[in-house]
Amino acid sequence: MSDIPYKVYLSEKEIPTQWYNVRADMKNKPAPLVNPGTGEPMKVDELFPVFCEELCRQEMDNETPYIDIPQEIQDFYKMYRPSPLVRAYCLEKALDTPAHIYYKFEGNNTSGSHKLNSAIAQAYYAKKQGLKGVTTETGAGQWGTALSMACAYLGLDCQVYMVKVSYEQKPFRREVMRTYGAKVTPSPSMETNIGRAINEQYPGTTGSLGCAISEAVEAATSQEGYRYVLGSVLNQVLLHQSVIGLEAKAALDKVGVKADMIIGCAGGGSNLGGLISPFVGQMLRGEADYDIIAVEPASCPSLTRGSYVYDFCDTGKVCPLAKMYTLGSGYIPAPNHAGGLRYHGMSPVISQLYDDKLISARSVKQTEVFEAAEMFARVEGILPAPESSHAIRVAIDEALKCKETGEEKNILFGLTGTGYFDMVAYQQYNDGTMSDYVPTDEEIAASLAQCPKF
Amino acid sequence: MSDIPYKVYLSEKEIPTQWYNVRADMKNKPAPLVNPGTGEPMKVDELFPVFCEELCRQEMDNETPYIDIPQEIQDFYKMYRPSPLVRAYCLEKALDTPAHIYYKFEGNNTSGSHKLNSAIAQAYYAKKQGLKGVTTETGAGQWGTALSMACAYLGLDCQVYMVKVSYEQKPFRREVMRTYGAKVTPSPSMETNIGRAINEQYPGTTGSLGCAISEAVEAATSQEGYRYVLGSVLNQVLLHQSVIGLEAKAALDKVGVKADMIIGCAGGGSNLGGLISPFVGQMLRGEADYDIIAVEPASCPSLTRGSYVYDFCDTGKVCPLAKMYTLGSGYIPAPNHAGGLRYHGMSPVISQLYDDKLISARSVKQTEVFEAAEMFARVEGILPAPESSHAIRVAIDEALKCKETGEEKNILFGLTGTGYFDMVAYQQYNDGTMSDYVPTDEEIAASLAQCPKF
Repeated sequence: MSDIPYKVYLSEKEIPTQWYNVRADMKNKPAPLVNPGTGEPMKVDELFPVFCEELCRQEMDNETPYIDIPQEIQDFYKMYRPSPLVRAYCLEKALDTPAHIYYKFEGNNTSGSHKLNSAIAQAYYAKKQGLKGVTTETGAGQWGTALSMACAYLGLDCQVYMVKVSYEQKPFRREVMRTYGAKVTPSPSMETNIGRAINEQYPGTTGSLGCAISEAVEAATSQEGYRYVLGSVLNQVLLHQSVIGLEAKAALDKVGVKADMIIGCAGGGSNLGGLISPFVGQMLRGEADYDIIAVEPASCPSLTRGSYVYDFCDTGKVCPLAKMYTLGSGYIPAPNHAGGLRYHGMSPVISQLYDDKLISARSVKQTEVFEAAEMFARVEGILPAPESSHAIRVAIDEALKCKETGEEKNILFGLTGTGYFDMVAYQQYNDGTMSDYVPTDEEIAASLAQCPKF
Repeated sequence: MSDIPYKVYLSEKEIPTQWYNVRADMKNKPAPLVNPGTGEPMKVDELFPVFCEELCRQEMDNETPYIDIPQEIQDFYKMYRPSPLVRAYCLEKALDTPAHIYYKFEGNNTSGSHKLNSAIAQAYYAKKQGLKGVTTETGAGQWGTALSMACAYLGLDCQVYMVKVSYEQKPFRREVMRTYGAKVTPSPSMETNIGRAINEQYPGTTGSLGCAISEAVEAATSQEGYRYVLGSVLNQVLLHQSVIGLEAKAALDKVGVKADMIIGCAGGGSNLGGLISPFVGQMLRGEADYDIIAVEPASCPSLTRGSYVYDFCDTGKVCPLAKMYTLGSGYIPAPNHAGGLRYHGMSPVISQLYDDKLISARSVKQTEVFEAAEMFARVEGILPAPESSHAIRVAIDEALKCKETGEEKNILFGLTGTGYFDMVAYQQYNDGTMSDYVPTDEEIAASLAQCPKF
């Protein structure tokens, strides 16, 4: 065994004090958000009614490579960061692979995932702007939990629209948010015009992420002193999440290791974007090369089977349009899809990097994902989130390839969170009742046909 | 703010390589286990049919102050240890107290508590003895989860008898254990003589810890190659848990802090015993003095209202007798009691230290406990286990006393785990439906009257 410890911890003083904005180094910038009414790129002040002003500026900023992290956010980061970079010695041994496997573990906080990194930033800027509160949507509940924690810390009101099926099936996530003082409303609700309209049009609907976004935006714009915040997809979120990649790179540098391959799960793209940012920055500046793989569910394959076009970000079509790899804003994964990673589109930054072939993508079926999750839990001791387990699956596959070729590759993957609130899905897997679904080409084509034309 | 970081981490090389056995320094040793048939102290080989041999020797060893931690256990510890010593800056600020508050956080592992420290040790010695598997009981599920993780790691069979009410109300804990390959049986079951007898005598019973212990012991002794393991109360468990206190003391020493007050929750006594061991050792050797407080639920007050007598450890009366502070082996907390800490007795080591007035005890009501838990969650970001929150309650009370007196006391408490699987209790608190119960003197006297006479 090498002299690299099981867990590489940076010191508190080594936590990044600046976020890294990969857009500054991108030759092909991500496409701008577009006003669905005019078809013109959004101006920064057009976003102010919906989003916090400083966050709008961050959203639009394609030039500044490093942005200072305010001291208050740095202090909050110290409560749960730096997160460990773990050398997966036990997994390597179990696989009998010559590969060296590392993972950046973001699950050691009560929100159970990396989402807290952006939640505290967004809540901070809302507070600084003098707002009373923020609204948001949540699906599986990680983002809503993270935001409720950040708001409780700062004394900000937090209103969460939770996809109804999750609200009912995940009562414990709901209770964590309530414990942090958030108001949690099942979506579609009867509290917004959009919610009432959807309930009327589709009686008994269990909701969708796109619908909950629409409700949260309406709630923000119809209350004095509120703005809407979002946990993924947006440029600003990837900026905040760069703290993951910066810490991971610093920890690897500390032990003298250069990653060959970087693997991350991708739903909206916040974790993957944050993890790979500084590494992609090196690639863009011609300083290093990495094999980067985005892993998505076969049941929601926006990168591997979607189109790179302008699309609606939400079901109610109240948000600006974004150019992204998308399956169409009406796309909803089949009911047997268990975990998160169910958004119809992909972060514009990730979409552009993928279109420029700086990163590759792969889709995996969920029973294969849970097989990897269970193996990982048993040998590494951490019960992973279903989302994170997509990356585990591909890391294991790649490590097994190394076993065949004899290559001692350094594989880094993002372990975004823990699965403690996902035991219904684990139960399905344990009981053998979990199934896979892969959408047909016709289904995807029909959904994509609804995208706006530009 | 001082220059002490938020989290003090020891390096991997500073993880203890020996457990500390406080019994070696105790002038008054804990009373020996007694054979219920003969009334004589148990000899070590009389325990072999039930427990692993090396663990029996550790159980009886009142002389050896330091016991080497086998390398395999050290390696496992490296996956989730050292655990952080946290300076609760945010809690101090919220309380506006001059006190300095520290907590040793044992919840950053999938079992969600400190129980893993002893689970891996017990599983290791079982494996080393060539056994096929181990049996145990679990109430809230932390111990069963920890043991299933340790057994999965070592490739050992794990059979868990889970108190029926928890099995039904905590399906997610059950699924975590199943994910780690454990067989989980609701207790009382129809698989053991004792389970069948109890089911016949009390149709529809939802079980108790004492009954599950009896079933697990019967299962161990009636299968070839199995032994019984226990997560608390026993001397050996406190020995393994000394890793908590050793790390806490090393971390405090590292930043030049001497604790004035040490606070831990106490059910069977494993966390408290582990946390305080090296500090009590200093007291016993006349090297230092500490104000040590055991905190127990008002609904299960073994130290503050029980008697120090020989009692049965289990309902079925199949285990040796132990001299301990007890409420009587038939004592079951009222149905509104939400968390763990529901065992009728207290570790013989803790009992003796308490009887010798080396430590004090305090009982708290559960609504006060959840009030403290929610405050802690909101300012420190960690959602605590109900058990741990007993210590938080008293730490907050003591910090508020310091506010009145102006004393800058250093308060250390044990944050034994997280509450992610206890959201039903949090929901009761959030909904205002949680109530308190304090047993009457008559109830306790009636239960104590059933203790054996010696």
